[in-house]
Amino acid sequence: MPSDRVLIIGGGPAGIEAARNLADLGIPVTIVEARERLGGMPIHAQYAALTPDLEDAETAMNRRIEPLLGHPLVDLRCNSAVTGSSGTAGDFRVRVAVGGKEDVVPAAAIIVATGFQHFDPGRETQMYGYYEFDDVITLPDCEKMLKEHKVVRPSNGQPPECVAFIQCVGSRDRQIGNEFCSKVCCGIASKEAIEIRQQLPNCKVFIFYIDMRMYGYWENELYWPAQEKHKVNYVRGIVSEVLKKGDRLVIRGEDTTLGRPVEAPMDLVVLSVGMEPSKGTREMAKLLGLPQNPYGYLDTVGVPLDTVSTAVEGVFAAGSCTGPADLEDSISAGATAAMRAAVLLRKKRAGAEARG
Amino acid sequence: MPSDRVLIIGGGPAGIEAARNLADLGIPVTIVEARERLGGMPIHAQYAALTPDLEDAETAMNRRIEPLLGHPLVDLRCNSAVTGSSGTAGDFRVRVAVGGKEDVVPAAAIIVATGFQHFDPGRETQMYGYYEFDDVITLPDCEKMLKEHKVVRPSNGQPPECVAFIQCVGSRDRQIGNEFCSKVCCGIASKEAIEIRQQLPNCKVFIFYIDMRMYGYWENELYWPAQEKHKVNYVRGIVSEVLKKGDRLVIRGEDTTLGRPVEAPMDLVVLSVGMEPSKGTREMAKLLGLPQNPYGYLDTVGVPLDTVSTAVEGVFAAGSCTGPADLEDSISAGATAAMRAAVLLRKKRAGAEARG
Repeated sequence: MPSDRVLIIGGGPAGIEAARNLADLGIPVTIVEARERLGGMPIHAQYAALTPDLEDAETAMNRRIEPLLGHPLVDLRCNSAVTGSSGTAGDFRVRVAVGGKEDVVPAAAIIVATGFQHFDPGRETQMYGYYEFDDVITLPDCEKMLKEHKVVRPSNGQPPECVAFIQCVGSRDRQIGNEFCSKVCCGIASKEAIEIRQQLPNCKVFIFYIDMRMYGYWENELYWPAQEKHKVNYVRGIVSEVLKKGDRLVIRGEDTTLGRPVEAPMDLVVLSVGMEPSKGTREMAKLLGLPQNPYGYLDTVGVPLDTVSTAVEGVFAAGSCTGPADLEDSISAGATAAMRAAVLLRKKRAGAEARG
Repeated sequence: MPSDRVLIIGGGPAGIEAARNLADLGIPVTIVEARERLGGMPIHAQYAALTPDLEDAETAMNRRIEPLLGHPLVDLRCNSAVTGSSGTAGDFRVRVAVGGKEDVVPAAAIIVATGFQHFDPGRETQMYGYYEFDDVITLPDCEKMLKEHKVVRPSNGQPPECVAFIQCVGSRDRQIGNEFCSKVCCGIASKEAIEIRQQLPNCKVFIFYIDMRMYGYWENELYWPAQEKHKVNYVRGIVSEVLKKGDRLVIRGEDTTLGRPVEAPMDLVVLSVGMEPSKGTREMAKLLGLPQNPYGYLDTVGVPLDTVSTAVEGVFAAGSCTGPADLEDSISAGATAAMRAAVLLRKKRAGAEARG
C-alpha cells in the first residue's frame, strides 16, 4: 500500500498553506523546514508589515502557523534538510536529516515550497555602493528598521530627513542576468515609503522608478494613498550612481519625465532588490531532478497555465521557488499544489485498491 | 445528512478549474453556466491566443473543458441561471432555471466564478470616439480579428499600416470611478501587438502607456521580445483625444518621455479597455448576500491574504469576480476555492456523523 502522506519542503507562506489544507482534508503531512521555525521570509527577514494590507507581518504569519502546531496530522521538522529522495509518484522515500540523524519519510507526493532570496547587490559589481556606504541599504534592511520603529542612518544613528528608494535593483537587468521583473518591489517600496512617512513625518521620501507596477488593487490601495495621503514623491527616472559627499549621499541620474539630469543629496538610499531563487530552491532542483529556467527558478513545465506541476510526476512546486510571486500568489499556489497532491493520492489509492 | 455536492456558478477558467479538481477528488459538482457552452471569456469573446504563452485560446480552453464533459460526477447546466438560494453552509438549496423550468439543487458549498466584463468606453462619455469612428476598436474587438487572421480597418476592410493601442481605458481613472489597475491590459495589448506584427509584417504598431505593467515573467517573455524581436513601439504618454482627418484617425496627446506633444495619423486605434465585474457577478452578489467593494467586485472579506472566502460561510469566490485577475490567477483561485469547499464538506460530514 503506498503512503498516504505528503512531504512539504519549506515552511513559508506557500508551504504553510499547502500543509493546512491537506491536514484539513485528513491527509497527513511532513513539513521539512531548514530554519528553526515556520514562517518563511516574512518571519526570517523580520518584515514589518505585509503588502498590500499593512497588517503586522508576525501577527499575520502566526495566525497561519498556529493551526499547524500540535496538529495530529502535521509532522513538523524544523532545523531539517532533505538530503535525498528515491521512488516515484505515490511511493517516494525522502531522506530527512536533522542534526546528525537521518531517517526516511515515505510520501505519496512532494510539494517544493523553498522560496526565494533577496537579490544581493554584490561586492564585486558594487551596485550603488551597497558594500561601500553605510547609508545605502536594501528593502529587507529597511523592513527590519521599520519593525523596530527605528529608521536611522546606519552611519550615525540619526533619523534621515531625506530617503530615496531605487527600483529594479537586480531586476529587468540583462547585465545582471535577471531579465524578469520581480513583481513585488514596487508595492513593497511604496509600503515602506508609507511606513517611513508614518514613523518620521518630517522625512521626505522619493521613489525612483522605471514603471510603477502597482497592478490590480495595489493601484488604489497603495499607490494612490502613498501619493495623496502620505505625500511620497514618485520620480520616473534612472539613478545611475550613488556617491558620497561629506557625510551625506548624492544620487545622480535622469528624471525621464522632465528629461533632465537629477543630482540630489540623500541621507539614506534604499535599494529595491528583487527576488532570486533561494539556495534551497536550487538544491532541491538538483536533488529531485526538477528542470530550472535560466534564472534558476523551478520550471512548471506541465500544462500551460498550470503553475504547480513540475516535470516529475508527483512533485509539485508552489510559490516563489517558481518565480517572482506576491503573498497572495504564494498562498494560492500552496492551496493549488495541495489540491493536486490530494488528487494524486486519491488516484494512487484507487489504483492500489484495484490491484488488491 | 447534508449534501455532498458543490455548486459552481460560472464555467470560465476559474469555475472549470474548481470543477475539475473537485470531481477528481470524488466530489460531485453542478456547474451553472449562463452561456451555451463552457469556456468563459476566452471562448465567448473569441480570444485569439492566451497571454503570456500565445497558445491558441480555443485549444487551451478545450483541453481544460474536455475532462468535464460526460464526467459522471459533473452535472453541467448550460443556458442556465441561479435564481435563488436558501440554507446555510453544508446545506444550501439553490434554485437553478433552464428555459422555463426551475429545480432545486442541494449543495454543501457554493463557488461563485462569474467573472468580469470588458469596460465599455460608453456612448455618453464618448471616450476616444469608440461609438463615433469605425476604426476605433477595443482589445476584444481586435482579438476577434486576430483569431480570423483578418486585421482590417472596419471602415474600409483594408489592412492597417499604422495601429495605436491606448492603455488604461477605464482603469486607473477616478473620473470613470475605476481607480484600480486592470492588471492584464499591458500584457494583452503587447500580445496583440506581437500578433499584428506577425500577421501584418509591414504594419507599424505603437502602444501608448502610463506604466508598462509587465510583472514577473511577462517582462522577459512578452515585453522584451515585443520590442526587440517584433519591433513594437512603446511610447510613454497620454493620449487625450482621437480625431478624424480625411479617412484616417489622428491621435493627440503627450509623449511624456520626450516632454512634447504628439500628433500622429493612425489607421486603427485599439482601446485597451480594462476589467469590470460582470452582470452575473453583480447579480450573484445580491442574490447570495455577498458584500461588494466600491467597484462592484465580490469582497473576499475573510482573513487577510485569503482571496476566496466571502463573508457568507460556505460561499467562495474565485477569479475575476473578485477583481482584476490574469488567467493564472483565476485558475489558482479556482483550485483554492475547490480546496476550501472540499475542506468544508469534510467538516460538515464529520459533524453530521458525530450527531448520528
